[in-house]
Amino acid sequence: MIKLATIGTSWITEQFIEACIAEGSYQLSKVYSRTLDKAQAVVDKYKQGKAVDDLADLYQDDVDIIYIASPNALHYGHAIEALKHEKHVIVEKPQFANLNEWQDAHDLAREKDLYLFEAIRHIQNRNYKLLKSLLAQKLVELDQPFLGAALNIGQYSSKYDAYVDAIEHQGNLPNIFNLEFATGTLMDIGVYPIYVAVDLFGMPDQVDYQPVKGPNGVDLMGTIIFTYDTFQVTIFISKAVHSTKPSEIYIGDETIVIPYISEMDRIDVVTRQNVCVQSYQYPELQPMYDEAKYFADILQGAETDYAYQDLEKLSQQVTRVMQDLREVADIEFIKRSH
Amino acid sequence: MIKLATIGTSWITEQFIEACIAEGSYQLSKVYSRTLDKAQAVVDKYKQGKAVDDLADLYQDDVDIIYIASPNALHYGHAIEALKHEKHVIVEKPQFANLNEWQDAHDLAREKDLYLFEAIRHIQNRNYKLLKSLLAQKLVELDQPFLGAALNIGQYSSKYDAYVDAIEHQGNLPNIFNLEFATGTLMDIGVYPIYVAVDLFGMPDQVDYQPVKGPNGVDLMGTIIFTYDTFQVTIFISKAVHSTKPSEIYIGDETIVIPYISEMDRIDVVTRQNVCVQSYQYPELQPMYDEAKYFADILQGAETDYAYQDLEKLSQQVTRVMQDLREVADIEFIKRSH
Repeated sequence: MIKLATIGTSWITEQFIEACIAEGSYQLSKVYSRTLDKAQAVVDKYKQGKAVDDLADLYQDDVDIIYIASPNALHYGHAIEALKHEKHVIVEKPQFANLNEWQDAHDLAREKDLYLFEAIRHIQNRNYKLLKSLLAQKLVELDQPFLGAALNIGQYSSKYDAYVDAIEHQGNLPNIFNLEFATGTLMDIGVYPIYVAVDLFGMPDQVDYQPVKGPNGVDLMGTIIFTYDTFQVTIFISKAVHSTKPSEIYIGDETIVIPYISEMDRIDVVTRQNVCVQSYQYPELQPMYDEAKYFADILQGAETDYAYQDLEKLSQQVTRVMQDLREVADIEFIKRSH
Repeated sequence: MIKLATIGTSWITEQFIEACIAEGSYQLSKVYSRTLDKAQAVVDKYKQGKAVDDLADLYQDDVDIIYIASPNALHYGHAIEALKHEKHVIVEKPQFANLNEWQDAHDLAREKDLYLFEAIRHIQNRNYKLLKSLLAQKLVELDQPFLGAALNIGQYSSKYDAYVDAIEHQGNLPNIFNLEFATGTLMDIGVYPIYVAVDLFGMPDQVDYQPVKGPNGVDLMGTIIFTYDTFQVTIFISKAVHSTKPSEIYIGDETIVIPYISEMDRIDVVTRQNVCVQSYQYPELQPMYDEAKYFADILQGAETDYAYQDLEKLSQQVTRVMQDLREVADIEFIKRSH
């Protein structure tokens, strides 16, 4: 069994714990929170593990891997400490705030022969993996130029109302719309379509990001364009508005339609006459099940090290692209003074 | 009755004739084609008018207004001749290839006290007019910043296959993907969402267009971004791929969803929970009925001249924006040598 510790107690940590329990290879060993009661509540819920409020407790022998879902700006510090203490690490997306942090942490992991995963669940999803091989096949068979894709994620966050209110009344900004926390639309959900674009089509020749910014400079909505030699991927993202649009890949006389790109719960192939001719709808047992299983397979040797290296390379590429996009869009994170 | 003559015999001319007949204010007087048989076939079909193959026949007393649906590159010459002969004119969208042509023709129309309409049917559509007043009201009531819209039109043209084939075998390019005919995706269908954006939100502060071009330099697919002071309109367009995406306007906690922006057959208001709370679905009697009626109302004085001036101003703004977009995207039409 893989002895698991967690940092962070929001819904996403619970979702990961549930996926690990369902998957069967993991055993919850420690749940950390700065507030012991919060950690205890999680332990009570799953009747596994021990609640702790001291990070040092995670570096004991009864922990193999530490799952980090703290606020983005704390990922780097938490990951470095865990690696220094010889623990494998899983960091929620986006793994690190910039390429320097990414390189530092991954250098350390390599030096210590430890795994450092980015938790980006849709990439391990079974529907998505089927889409990948389908697309590869279609691209080979295609007798017309490939023109590209238009990806879309517009998920209104309930924190946006709090943000508007905070701006108006000079209150505290919610973490998710705060440059001191290395957040914003691109970081928080833009990472999903970007992962897909880089994974399917490789690194673009040129990137562009034109965001609508809020009064504090954070990106609320925006348009990303990846330019490749002969095709284009355009990406609409927002955490402040609700969009019903699917993502689409245009491939000859068919269009691959992905209703929810962060979930990959369904993938359809439709003709130009709007007839659905193919559909993948394998449900995951838990939203993060396929991801938890893939990490376990790598940790336990059921997948080769190449699988890990592929994940690592992709994570690095995405981190690089996201940094380039912020530079183009003039989005600068603020060093926290407190 | 308004005595109508038509130039062009493709499906769009027939659609306009049918709308005029259904509307009731028009009488088909002349149908022009370079090939008399083609014109005669239209006359036979509607049992109205006279087939002619000489443009001079359109300048007789039995014609009040000339509807021009010739290839884009011929619009200007046809319109100028008609105006010189004291005829009102309706030109299919896009009216003229550039702002100089637009200004010339409209100066002449004004000088001669004639109407020169651009036929862009969705702007006169009843659902769209309801959307406009709904949006105006919502923008006044809105207590959050308005962030913008994401419009979409991806309509594969069967001529695209012929284009790919022509490129491969050095054959004749179809008109619609040929810079000698002032065509391409932006000109042919980009004009629909651009009309909507300029009509609803006014002239943008900045425009961007990043297209995927075919080997002859024509735009096959692309991303347009209109930047306004505090919001953004992003527009995906293609005549070479099939897209299922609707267009969307983000307004507070609601999203206005337009499934087909060139048709406006349905407009929905959905909540962030994806519940449709309002819907406009007035069908037109004919696809161009509302447009034919609006022109008739202006010609017959049922609408004031302000209505015409509004249309004219909008047409000018759209022509200007389209010219700017082509400049940004480095799309240059080619003077025809034959």
